[in-house]
Amino acid sequence: MKIGIIGATGYGGLELIRLLHNHPEAERIDLFTSSEEGMQFSNKYTHLMNIYDQKLLAIEHNRLTEYDVIFTSTPSGVSTGILPSLIGSGPKLIDLSGDFRLKNPLDYEQWYQKAPAPPTALEKSVYGLTEWNEAAIQQADLIANPGCYPTAVLLSLLPLLKENLIDSTNIVIDAKSGVSGAGNKPSQMTHFSETNENTAIYKIHQHQHIPEIEQAINMFAGQTSPITFTTHLVPMTRGILATSYAALQSNVTERQLTNALKERYAYDPFVRIIEETNKFGTNQVYGSNFCDIHVKVDPRTNRATIVSVIDNLVKGAAGQAIQNMNVQFNIDQTTGLQQVPLFI
Amino acid sequence: MKIGIIGATGYGGLELIRLLHNHPEAERIDLFTSSEEGMQFSNKYTHLMNIYDQKLLAIEHNRLTEYDVIFTSTPSGVSTGILPSLIGSGPKLIDLSGDFRLKNPLDYEQWYQKAPAPPTALEKSVYGLTEWNEAAIQQADLIANPGCYPTAVLLSLLPLLKENLIDSTNIVIDAKSGVSGAGNKPSQMTHFSETNENTAIYKIHQHQHIPEIEQAINMFAGQTSPITFTTHLVPMTRGILATSYAALQSNVTERQLTNALKERYAYDPFVRIIEETNKFGTNQVYGSNFCDIHVKVDPRTNRATIVSVIDNLVKGAAGQAIQNMNVQFNIDQTTGLQQVPLFI
Amino acid sequence: MKIGIIGATGYGGLELIRLLHNHPEAERIDLFTSSEEGMQFSNKYTHLMNIYDQKLLAIEHNRLTEYDVIFTSTPSGVSTGILPSLIGSGPKLIDLSGDFRLKNPLDYEQWYQKAPAPPTALEKSVYGLTEWNEAAIQQADLIANPGCYPTAVLLSLLPLLKENLIDSTNIVIDAKSGVSGAGNKPSQMTHFSETNENTAIYKIHQHQHIPEIEQAINMFAGQTSPITFTTHLVPMTRGILATSYAALQSNVTERQLTNALKERYAYDPFVRIIEETNKFGTNQVYGSNFCDIHVKVDPRTNRATIVSVIDNLVKGAAGQAIQNMNVQFNIDQTTGLQQVPLFI
Amino acid sequence: MKIGIIGATGYGGLELIRLLHNHPEAERIDLFTSSEEGMQFSNKYTHLMNIYDQKLLAIEHNRLTEYDVIFTSTPSGVSTGILPSLIGSGPKLIDLSGDFRLKNPLDYEQWYQKAPAPPTALEKSVYGLTEWNEAAIQQADLIANPGCYPTAVLLSLLPLLKENLIDSTNIVIDAKSGVSGAGNKPSQMTHFSETNENTAIYKIHQHQHIPEIEQAINMFAGQTSPITFTTHLVPMTRGILATSYAALQSNVTERQLTNALKERYAYDPFVRIIEETNKFGTNQVYGSNFCDIHVKVDPRTNRATIVSVIDNLVKGAAGQAIQNMNVQFNIDQTTGLQQVPLFI
Repeated sequence: MKIGIIGATGYGGLELIRLLHNHPEAERIDLFTSSEEGMQFSNKYTHLMNIYDQKLLAIEHNRLTEYDVIFTSTPSGVSTGILPSLIGSGPKLIDLSGDFRLKNPLDYEQWYQKAPAPPTALEKSVYGLTEWNEAAIQQADLIANPGCYPTAVLLSLLPLLKENLIDSTNIVIDAKSGVSGAGNKPSQMTHFSETNENTAIYKIHQHQHIPEIEQAINMFAGQTSPITFTTHLVPMTRGILATSYAALQSNVTERQLTNALKERYAYDPFVRIIEETNKFGTNQVYGSNFCDIHVKVDPRTNRATIVSVIDNLVKGAAGQAIQNMNVQFNIDQTTGLQQVPLFI
Repeated sequence: MKIGIIGATGYGGLELIRLLHNHPEAERIDLFTSSEEGMQFSNKYTHLMNIYDQKLLAIEHNRLTEYDVIFTSTPSGVSTGILPSLIGSGPKLIDLSGDFRLKNPLDYEQWYQKAPAPPTALEKSVYGLTEWNEAAIQQADLIANPGCYPTAVLLSLLPLLKENLIDSTNIVIDAKSGVSGAGNKPSQMTHFSETNENTAIYKIHQHQHIPEIEQAINMFAGQTSPITFTTHLVPMTRGILATSYAALQSNVTERQLTNALKERYAYDPFVRIIEETNKFGTNQVYGSNFCDIHVKVDPRTNRATIVSVIDNLVKGAAGQAIQNMNVQFNIDQTTGLQQVPLFI
Repeated sequence: MKIGIIGATGYGGLELIRLLHNHPEAERIDLFTSSEEGMQFSNKYTHLMNIYDQKLLAIEHNRLTEYDVIFTSTPSGVSTGILPSLIGSGPKLIDLSGDFRLKNPLDYEQWYQKAPAPPTALEKSVYGLTEWNEAAIQQADLIANPGCYPTAVLLSLLPLLKENLIDSTNIVIDAKSGVSGAGNKPSQMTHFSETNENTAIYKIHQHQHIPEIEQAINMFAGQTSPITFTTHLVPMTRGILATSYAALQSNVTERQLTNALKERYAYDPFVRIIEETNKFGTNQVYGSNFCDIHVKVDPRTNRATIVSVIDNLVKGAAGQAIQNMNVQFNIDQTTGLQQVPLFI
Repeated sequence: MKIGIIGATGYGGLELIRLLHNHPEAERIDLFTSSEEGMQFSNKYTHLMNIYDQKLLAIEHNRLTEYDVIFTSTPSGVSTGILPSLIGSGPKLIDLSGDFRLKNPLDYEQWYQKAPAPPTALEKSVYGLTEWNEAAIQQADLIANPGCYPTAVLLSLLPLLKENLIDSTNIVIDAKSGVSGAGNKPSQMTHFSETNENTAIYKIHQHQHIPEIEQAINMFAGQTSPITFTTHLVPMTRGILATSYAALQSNVTERQLTNALKERYAYDPFVRIIEETNKFGTNQVYGSNFCDIHVKVDPRTNRATIVSVIDNLVKGAAGQAIQNMNVQFNIDQTTGLQQVPLFI
């Protein structure tokens, strides 16, 4: 495969390079830029010396159509201007931004405060939550790769909602993320001295991943209630831990919840259900494409606590994008994605 | 005042020393130990050289009665064996452990898995949540200083529960703590390499602070529903951020919630209501005795998100203990506790 | 005292506020800004709510002359434009930037790449390394407060150089700093995701503190050899650890080195010599004005390893500035600076 | 290849499993334990679920001889009791501990304070610094895999010493390490709350890697002067940055140093010389087998500052061990070791 990456200098782009470098089907990987054409990439990111020393290429429509796959890993609003004209022109398109995720353009306008993608492109885009949309992904020209938070949340909640084991009208999701999710652009919010030794809540009730989660719950589990979802920044680089709280439907047991998850993901190589654990954290999956899930029922309150962890840059971004590429090209989902979690 | 500290080598004890060193009424501070008698304290903790070079004293009943105040900052089950015989013998007693917090000995047995304190001592103990129990604290011989999590949670929820602005039957509390809350004893759970770059949930539905929170909600707000409460370990040393989610009673607005908090704490120097903020975190209060609270209503779900932050070692332990001592001795609550948060 | 602070929104300024808030002689503290006049300070820094709610004032010459002390905590090149006209106008001036430290304007031009302060002002400025320049500081109108790295390095090396116990022609200094030393302005270099889990060397042989250290070694110990000095950024917020390596003069023993330090600082409350220790780190002094020093001779190589630690924002900036103010006003050096190190 | 790992539950062992899992020649990997026989490994380390679910095996001589390679990743003194009897019995032996590195048993006794391995075994062991000892490694039955610090130090200094570009009698090495180097056993030294926000020096002049470095400098560069070498613990999990300072031989330029390094390692895939960089840190190599080196001459002092970075668990332990295995089995050195650094 000939692979093009637009937005290579962001963290999503860097992670695509890291993972694709050892992908057996990646014959050629070219990086595209809107502003740094001609720069030797390993001069900026010296950790890639001897690994990826090519020069950045300018984004030109005709050049892009020569690739088998184009990944866009760009800030909101950028891929909207690049991808629509490429649909059907040859390459499979995989967008890591939020531009093609929300089917309703008004939702995009409201939550992203930017102009939405054209409706025709939105219609064609397929939501790339691999474990839940494989058939559509296989046929898709344009994949809207899920957000990091939605990936962690949806994989853990969808089986329980679909089986009607938890009450969809009473769900609270408290998510904690490492700082790399905020990207590579310096800001006060991600300045080391104000982020280190600090756990903070941000964008309360206003995170753009809220409508994405709700849309997917409707799409895959047929439930339509709004959710409460908050996001926290913790002093680490990688990882998301999402703790979800749901009222149980009557007489549902912990065993039923665990079994529903185990059965649903019995053939999905990247989702693991962890049954016994004292301490369940993001280091479970560091650097890998796994999503690990742990469930515990509180008999005192008849609620379930459902916890999931991912590496936000892998399963929450570049890893899932490659997983989707594998599906599109009919190769094993795990190709190039068998990294073992670092743990330490 | 002559002050004795039992358990000085733990983090609660170290923090008592740090704060009391500049307390204008502390004439003399002696440290007691069960195992390291005669050791010069600053030989073990060299950061205290020239500040606290005294030797550790052995714990002896007759010696202890000569003090005006005795603080115990010991592991669960230890102060149970020390304090009951000292009640009424002279010194005011302030216990930083959980031994005298739960009024029902069966609760202690169930949640701590240890033998409870004698019922007569439990009856006499006064729960030291300063802002809610000042009159009783003033008269108390034995104060059960609140746990770190309960302090953060109760200060933010009690006014809203008492005023019936939120539904007590539908409360979820997701708490995140720095690692110092686990004390100074090395363990796999607090080993740097497995704690750094890792956010983890632990003791799901089994944390011993659950019955303490419920007892206090009953005591101060008259509500008796069980709560859902979980605890997470984040890679930082100090700080607790508690995010609570509650269904609103009908027609309650964000303004009403904020005002209820502002009015309740209008004369409490250590509780601050932060109204406008983009990012609200534990660095707000680092090293200080403040509890800061921020509330946001989600009109889409009719739930409130109530966030509070404390320094677990100050307002969550040693600071509140000194605040209680000040109340007991009829001096200004803020005496010796006016440290400005470090922020960075 | 009426105190004015210019540059309050930087980390040096925030730390001055933190420390001066509890200084018994600080009657009034006003903050000055060049760009945010009228802003309520605690709206920007909510951790100061109820502590410092005043509005920022515009910098005006006539207004500044009404103060007893003016601190400038501004980026390089700024105080050069403010302080010269204030010399002798009334207030004592204490500059935390590097603008008045280097006596030779050519050195400033070379190492700071900016225009130097006027020679007349440079002549009047007194280098504020309190323990070495107390008499001059007492008389000074304008104090050039030392840099963070020079403070850590000089306090540990000067006694040994002055007594000719180590060879001044063969000194290597390897310094490690927390990230707050880089200030509050976001940049790629201080972006959390690229700073966390990373120890890095920067500005090799080009750090502007090199000529400052050499000038002070000449001034206080009469030695003129150039030094090798490098700086590293470690993933923590506060703290500097400087490890210096020096060839011993013949027959000098570890005991002599330790004694020279102990004798030199016998009456200096903020310098502590730690003799026995397994692990000697920056948490020794976190949040306090101490400089702790530890020395070890390697008989195999006849070199000494001399280690010193400070909190870069306290003894390395705001704390030492206040210490100098105390000296200028003939009050005890330790006034307002008796914070106990946080350690954890 | 059939591979056995003794000491799998330590961090070296975990890293061997992580890297060998994707090694194309690893047919079978078995884990051996002295104390936890029969335990399913992924029950203890849940991050390995579905990846490595086998049970731990007991260490038995006869069983071990059936393997092609045996890695020992055990605390000092353990492999001394296991490996000598296996030499020549079939498997290639690769020891990650320090037990077979020092040729002189008295050195081992002095620096490790333990009984040394038998002289016959020491004679047969080959020091596994791959880039400097490849021919011997290829023939070796028993490889003493280098320590983490020596690897970082030697790779950067040996070419300059061998070419006599720097003065071997005047070398100072200041090394900084992440905490994972201390292993998985909890202790006060590695307790999160005392390690986080703390940079510390430890074991001053007493680190057991000192004689190892000196022995290798003698072996590969023919120089015999003792070195000054110190070690620091910085608050991160992985990574070593070693800063070495050396007096230049007369008229040697920075260009000569850089060229000497580039030429020496022109055909070594894991050593990279980074010429231009503003900030040079351990995130360059995070999770990978690279050793990156950067050199800068200070014309003011005629000294060179030579900086090298490795991931202590990869090139400093498990990665180099696998690199040595590849050499022993005549397969490409990079097999199974082409992980791209994580950087963020």
